[in-house]
Amino acid sequence: MAKSKFEYVRNFETDDTCLRNCYIVVRLDGRNFHKFAEEHNFLKPNDDRALELMSRSARSVMEELDDIAVAYGQSDEFSFVFKRSTNWFKRRASKLMTHVASQFSSSYVFYWKDYFGEHPLLYPPGFDGRVVLYPSNRNLRDYLSWRQADCHINNLYNTAFWTLVQKGGLSTIQAEERLKGTLSADKNEILFSEFNINYNNESALHRKGTTLIWQKVKETSTKNVTVPSQGEEEVTFTRSRRKITACNCDIIGDSFWDEHPDILEEDS
Amino acid sequence: MAKSKFEYVRNFETDDTCLRNCYIVVRLDGRNFHKFAEEHNFLKPNDDRALELMSRSARSVMEELDDIAVAYGQSDEFSFVFKRSTNWFKRRASKLMTHVASQFSSSYVFYWKDYFGEHPLLYPPGFDGRVVLYPSNRNLRDYLSWRQADCHINNLYNTAFWTLVQKGGLSTIQAEERLKGTLSADKNEILFSEFNINYNNESALHRKGTTLIWQKVKETSTKNVTVPSQGEEEVTFTRSRRKITACNCDIIGDSFWDEHPDILEEDS
Amino acid sequence: MAKSKFEYVRNFETDDTCLRNCYIVVRLDGRNFHKFAEEHNFLKPNDDRALELMSRSARSVMEELDDIAVAYGQSDEFSFVFKRSTNWFKRRASKLMTHVASQFSSSYVFYWKDYFGEHPLLYPPGFDGRVVLYPSNRNLRDYLSWRQADCHINNLYNTAFWTLVQKGGLSTIQAEERLKGTLSADKNEILFSEFNINYNNESALHRKGTTLIWQKVKETSTKNVTVPSQGEEEVTFTRSRRKITACNCDIIGDSFWDEHPDILEEDS
Amino acid sequence: MAKSKFEYVRNFETDDTCLRNCYIVVRLDGRNFHKFAEEHNFLKPNDDRALELMSRSARSVMEELDDIAVAYGQSDEFSFVFKRSTNWFKRRASKLMTHVASQFSSSYVFYWKDYFGEHPLLYPPGFDGRVVLYPSNRNLRDYLSWRQADCHINNLYNTAFWTLVQKGGLSTIQAEERLKGTLSADKNEILFSEFNINYNNESALHRKGTTLIWQKVKETSTKNVTVPSQGEEEVTFTRSRRKITACNCDIIGDSFWDEHPDILEEDS
Repeated sequence: MAKSKFEYVRNFETDDTCLRNCYIVVRLDGRNFHKFAEEHNFLKPNDDRALELMSRSARSVMEELDDIAVAYGQSDEFSFVFKRSTNWFKRRASKLMTHVASQFSSSYVFYWKDYFGEHPLLYPPGFDGRVVLYPSNRNLRDYLSWRQADCHINNLYNTAFWTLVQKGGLSTIQAEERLKGTLSADKNEILFSEFNINYNNESALHRKGTTLIWQKVKETSTKNVTVPSQGEEEVTFTRSRRKITACNCDIIGDSFWDEHPDILEEDS
Repeated sequence: MAKSKFEYVRNFETDDTCLRNCYIVVRLDGRNFHKFAEEHNFLKPNDDRALELMSRSARSVMEELDDIAVAYGQSDEFSFVFKRSTNWFKRRASKLMTHVASQFSSSYVFYWKDYFGEHPLLYPPGFDGRVVLYPSNRNLRDYLSWRQADCHINNLYNTAFWTLVQKGGLSTIQAEERLKGTLSADKNEILFSEFNINYNNESALHRKGTTLIWQKVKETSTKNVTVPSQGEEEVTFTRSRRKITACNCDIIGDSFWDEHPDILEEDS
Repeated sequence: MAKSKFEYVRNFETDDTCLRNCYIVVRLDGRNFHKFAEEHNFLKPNDDRALELMSRSARSVMEELDDIAVAYGQSDEFSFVFKRSTNWFKRRASKLMTHVASQFSSSYVFYWKDYFGEHPLLYPPGFDGRVVLYPSNRNLRDYLSWRQADCHINNLYNTAFWTLVQKGGLSTIQAEERLKGTLSADKNEILFSEFNINYNNESALHRKGTTLIWQKVKETSTKNVTVPSQGEEEVTFTRSRRKITACNCDIIGDSFWDEHPDILEEDS
Repeated sequence: MAKSKFEYVRNFETDDTCLRNCYIVVRLDGRNFHKFAEEHNFLKPNDDRALELMSRSARSVMEELDDIAVAYGQSDEFSFVFKRSTNWFKRRASKLMTHVASQFSSSYVFYWKDYFGEHPLLYPPGFDGRVVLYPSNRNLRDYLSWRQADCHINNLYNTAFWTLVQKGGLSTIQAEERLKGTLSADKNEILFSEFNINYNNESALHRKGTTLIWQKVKETSTKNVTVPSQGEEEVTFTRSRRKITACNCDIIGDSFWDEHPDILEEDS
């Protein structure tokens, strides 16, 4: 059983190092999540428990893997952006995407009961992933804008659809028919004039998705310290720590990026 | 929020279709499993609960994903072999490996309590994956032989090492020292002459790892059927079904492959 | 001008090693050769000087580069098949295809006058290339069959077309119209019944293209040798040498491959 | 001879599209040019005919292929930079590099006699190529700086070496020994103090290599035009045309890039 005579098979592995100086985006998508949502009775059009479990799993990925600068999720998808200068796992695409997919999936099951309580998970879910490279800050921001615009379009549609069904008494087929060919303005108008719903006041979590970033936070603690010849004194300690913060804000415009200049690295 | 102006970013995705007529192997490896095993008090040198949980997770992968012809696992790794003619996910490497990594990881957490009972899982584990292509049956068999030879070498070492520690009273440093430079024959001899252990009688699960294949099984059931003008009769139904079967046998020699001619496809 | 501070740019190079145990095919195609043929007054439907210059250039590629087992050319294209076990240039795809493209192109200009004599080359021609991998002998033979079937189909069409024009007095538009929708049998029939041409008796070079292989040849030479105390004697020397041989034969059927068993390597 | 049953082999071709928004650099290197230079009696340390033939061939590449923004050459190598926004050949790496390698090589033979006159080309030379992507202007400029710094280092060494041999009467072994371990300053000093050569006054072609860019030139021509009822008048026409211009200037510092702002495209 000489291992060495078989070891030539290692040479069949190929190198898949990601081009340097590019952002590395790993996007995960739920596999058959339409069915998964049905079987687990997810609320329509949005189930906050499911969305928060997605974010919790994404936070686990950011904590476990190095060099993720920002993550963005909506519905059953989540995108993770590795720093353009990262050298984690030597930038090997297969390592990066499988690690993200694995950590996210195990976390999703692990944290399920924190969000769904006694509501049981019926089977282990699956997520698929891909890697995409973006060479410039503009390209990366456009990628994230694309996903957030997708969130907006889908959520406006779903909000209108399920309002027509749940409050308007339409069948799903009738609701689909009613919305066919409508523009955003039309859907806003239906919600407002028929149901007195101002879409812009709907939950930001649903309209904007979730963006996770690292933020420096100052933590203050006090301690009693014994000072020689002076007795005991109360001393205040302040330390700075990196912590993952979630926000449900617009990331298409400039303000988010102006407020968080550390997320992106210079193009040059 | 016109989605369309951002959609150009899709063009940055690259095609990673696997070469046709090659076996596609996805291998998973546990991330930091040395530490994971310590923290969960895995038994040394082998923890059967952990090995069986690995196999259970691998079975979940085979059931959920299409076209896996054979899988082989040992220690904290598992290899999945897709049929050389598979067209699942259009043979896209990223899809194949992330699906495997994801399904395996979520299953590992999901089935944990079936094997570890009240012994809690402390945190969600991670696995990384890779894709390797093999153009010929010989190459594929050599790949699997390589992994099984690796299993043998490690298990013989670990068996000798932990026997010296657990039964021989050596410290781990002394055991390491004792085994330095020894060949297989030497380790077999230590086990036999000092501890009366015949390595070949040790658990096949530990020595050979686990091979999962699809097997056709005949299932027989009887039903009472009412036959007109003859009254009720008991009828026996036999149907053939594909079922995953595990074995802990040698897969380096020819006999396993001769017995299961359906696993491999012709080279031409 | 410290070179070292710029050297990081080398890390942007990517690895493009070809999968082991696969045939590596490099195919070249003439760039804008329709126009090139017009401007250099190539004869229709085939110009033997041009075809022979292609073969001469291909021979130069086979002589200069290592490990080409067989090459096949027709019209303005040529395919070069590297041995599946080759390690030339570490199997790097970019090296293999640029070397082939470069050597072929410089040879085409270099040997032009050997075939076209005083007929001048007006400008330097271009060829583009690609790399394709084939994992099995069957796949490789099917690739070559595909190219030879393409040769047949095009040459039969072109022979019929130009015969209608050159001997039948049709305009090119009329000839095109006449052949629209015809099958192979129809074209054979037109040639035979109208022009008394049996297509199968046409030049094999045009019908089958050119296949270049390495053959062992025995070379015999005689020398006068002075043998001490016996005087001068004539001695015959025989040595075996590898030499490129061209043939214009069928390579779709088995006989060519049966006659030349050394071209292909075993699949295992 | 049904072509269709073989056509499946096309599916073995793989996609090698270059990542968008990156500069695509194709670098060619002469194959065995040390030997080629010897056999064609190239002058030492630099043969202006050979360098100018390289530039002539590079110009042919720029004229024939689309979207090359700048090219840089020295010794037996030449780099071609495609615009980051190019869509030529759908950015397929194999097409880009083989076209460059082919056009350059055929041009090298085609224009040989324009530079070497009666001095014959003994055999067709070969060049190999590679593709490298650079995501930012800084990366691209650093690539070109790397090549020009390489030119400087080699030329300073070669100038010192051949001066010691040709003017100093040293053997090549003695010259090598003399220069071992010397820094740039030492070589400059040897040239200046022993041979009265100020390296900075040496040929810019040798010290800086050749940079080819597109420049807009105004061409003025005069014509005699007959104006009705006024008789004939001389009229001056000015038209703007793109033309390849060569320079032997520094491209490491900012001034070259400030003077030619059209070569690079914005990073965003």
